[in-house]
Amino acid sequence: MDIASYMQTVGQQARAASRVLAAATTDAKNQALSAIASRLRSSKDALLSANAADLAQARDDGLEPALVDRLTLTEKGIEAMAQGLEQIAALPDPVGEITDVKRRPSGIQVGKMRVPLGVIGIIYEARPNVTADAAGLCLKSGNAAILRGGKEAIHSNQAIAACVRAGLGDAGLPDTAVQVIETTDRAVVGQLITLPEYVDVIVPRGGKGLIERISREARVPVIKHLDGNCHVYVHTAADADKAVAIVENAKTQRYGTCNTAESLLIDAAIADAQLPRIGQMLADKGVTLRACAQSLAILRAAGVDPRHLEAAQESDWSEEYLAPIIAVRVVDGLDAAIEHINRYSSGHTESIVSENYTAAMRFLREVDSASVMINASTRFADGFEYGLGAEIGISTDKIHARGPVGLEGLTSQKWIVFGNGEVRR
Amino acid sequence: MDIASYMQTVGQQARAASRVLAAATTDAKNQALSAIASRLRSSKDALLSANAADLAQARDDGLEPALVDRLTLTEKGIEAMAQGLEQIAALPDPVGEITDVKRRPSGIQVGKMRVPLGVIGIIYEARPNVTADAAGLCLKSGNAAILRGGKEAIHSNQAIAACVRAGLGDAGLPDTAVQVIETTDRAVVGQLITLPEYVDVIVPRGGKGLIERISREARVPVIKHLDGNCHVYVHTAADADKAVAIVENAKTQRYGTCNTAESLLIDAAIADAQLPRIGQMLADKGVTLRACAQSLAILRAAGVDPRHLEAAQESDWSEEYLAPIIAVRVVDGLDAAIEHINRYSSGHTESIVSENYTAAMRFLREVDSASVMINASTRFADGFEYGLGAEIGISTDKIHARGPVGLEGLTSQKWIVFGNGEVRR
Repeated sequence: MDIASYMQTVGQQARAASRVLAAATTDAKNQALSAIASRLRSSKDALLSANAADLAQARDDGLEPALVDRLTLTEKGIEAMAQGLEQIAALPDPVGEITDVKRRPSGIQVGKMRVPLGVIGIIYEARPNVTADAAGLCLKSGNAAILRGGKEAIHSNQAIAACVRAGLGDAGLPDTAVQVIETTDRAVVGQLITLPEYVDVIVPRGGKGLIERISREARVPVIKHLDGNCHVYVHTAADADKAVAIVENAKTQRYGTCNTAESLLIDAAIADAQLPRIGQMLADKGVTLRACAQSLAILRAAGVDPRHLEAAQESDWSEEYLAPIIAVRVVDGLDAAIEHINRYSSGHTESIVSENYTAAMRFLREVDSASVMINASTRFADGFEYGLGAEIGISTDKIHARGPVGLEGLTSQKWIVFGNGEVRR
Repeated sequence: MDIASYMQTVGQQARAASRVLAAATTDAKNQALSAIASRLRSSKDALLSANAADLAQARDDGLEPALVDRLTLTEKGIEAMAQGLEQIAALPDPVGEITDVKRRPSGIQVGKMRVPLGVIGIIYEARPNVTADAAGLCLKSGNAAILRGGKEAIHSNQAIAACVRAGLGDAGLPDTAVQVIETTDRAVVGQLITLPEYVDVIVPRGGKGLIERISREARVPVIKHLDGNCHVYVHTAADADKAVAIVENAKTQRYGTCNTAESLLIDAAIADAQLPRIGQMLADKGVTLRACAQSLAILRAAGVDPRHLEAAQESDWSEEYLAPIIAVRVVDGLDAAIEHINRYSSGHTESIVSENYTAAMRFLREVDSASVMINASTRFADGFEYGLGAEIGISTDKIHARGPVGLEGLTSQKWIVFGNGEVRR
């Protein structure tokens, strides 16, 4: 296969389909979402057998169990995909929304209209459910999509793609509105990220290495999700019970998610009083504390199991462990905490635990991360928890979309002018 | 000078200053803007003499008159810069604005807070007034700025920079909040656009070649303004008087601006009736019409001076003339007009002239440009006309900011969470 010419065709078809999608009615888009859900349900056997082919290959290739787990489609998983699409159908349509209309001295009325971005390229790992989710979010937001999933899921993705195409057809929309790349050739990625005439934005999902490479080589804008080195900061005026509950939830509810806390900061003034209880709780949960000299001394003196205590290195402040490990550092008050976070954080999510209004509000304003919280677990940084209904990813970029990206993040606003023959003087 | 290490220092200083600026009060920022305005006024002689040095060099180098014109600072121009800064001081501060706060079922309250982007790099041509404007807009929006003006304006820019630094100092803000590059070495640009750790976004202003090069080589996001190939579309249901007035204003009020109309589309059904009057008006103003075969026949038959008529080539549909030339094409109704525009336009600004509600609203929704207008001159696409108070440029990008970019375009929104000890279940 000539990848360059294949991708040219895919790109041209996507651009053409994006014009139709941008003008499509909410009703047509919702019908397509429902139709795709029906097609997934009625194609259950075909989906499971395509997935079985991928799983057999994965086992032959000795894929890690965690990856095999993500790759696996079950009846329950198929039903979840279908329900996910129905949930997207139930969300309000962001496209065409007119806001902020103001009359200007010239007589014109100026406002904004929310519009699709156009063509969205999504590059993701071997998780077949992302194929359905991403198709649904792009469709509802009026965008054409080019989806490139992990090669390990190629059969599953093609089976899902057949359902998507059929569902689009059922609703009278072009079946090129969602194109799932049919080859596992890695050259596709290099092509996809360098087609500014056909692709308006790339959303890469996956490992840090992949995302860094795409950011470096892309010739189109990228909405990227790099790592999540999230902080909980226990301020001098923290409520001790809230501090324990929030650190416990933020660190231990799930270890492998990007909104899991990886660093704990605690004010020197209360470290003696509050750190032992927090440290004991973490150690009891099997978490290893990589602690600065001062916190290490406090934790040791408090009798926390030394098997769960290690001395932190400078590199620990920047680490995304995705594991039962947490970096711990005593800081000298609010300014030091904000400085530490703005220096070492990946800009994902940070939370202060404090009963002091002014300290909490300064933290909220001055911490430069996508989500900043007062007295809440970092685990809330999530499209569903925030009420977006669904998310395509969590952006650690600063322009366009920060944090969880839902339908709105897949659109932009153009200016609209209502005139009555006005000309500029 | 070692450019790489110079730019590292500039970048580090900008990042540090951006933290201070992000937390600065509205009052401090407004004080700085007023102080810079005062410093500009009181440094009038120094500014004029620095500018004289640039002008002498420009004449020696045989610079084009239009460029010399842009480079020239007058007393009036200095007063306009000072007033521009005072106008920016009078605008509402976008930073810290909290919106869309909603209580979620978990108990947390989720909202958004508008925040600065951080460090903004601006690369511009030899127009000294941009130095003051850009400094003012970045300052008010809480961003640190790195400004790299055209080498022909180096003395003028350094003189303005001295006023900016002094004014920042007067208000107790770091004088590194706005850094104007002190060297004309072109390697600066290559460095500035590849420092993602210090620069959050690049705004290039200038020729298409420069902007394309920057977009291609940048390793940080770019808010770019490419060309303005703006269309006026005279629909079947156009009011003939409005059509003439709008085409006249859009094409002839100023020839060199990006929101000037470069293409005229007219429906076949009314071309015989309305094109002659429009063509005559344009020819009377000295505009050359590059017309499709059908419109050329109509214009000739109507007796429009043949010296102002030329046959259009395919390339004319994409051209930004910035001159008394307009491309003219007869189209077969609304769909053909929208298709033509979405194919050939640069995505800047388009206007439909029509009394038909449904046609006008379809045009508004389906034309994929930064500004879409009904019955108004494309010349209105401007930050001041839209009520932004000022603009850093006009974006033809689709993500983040489209069209005129004011203070809001130099900010983004982060998520904020007000909790009371909530944890995720």
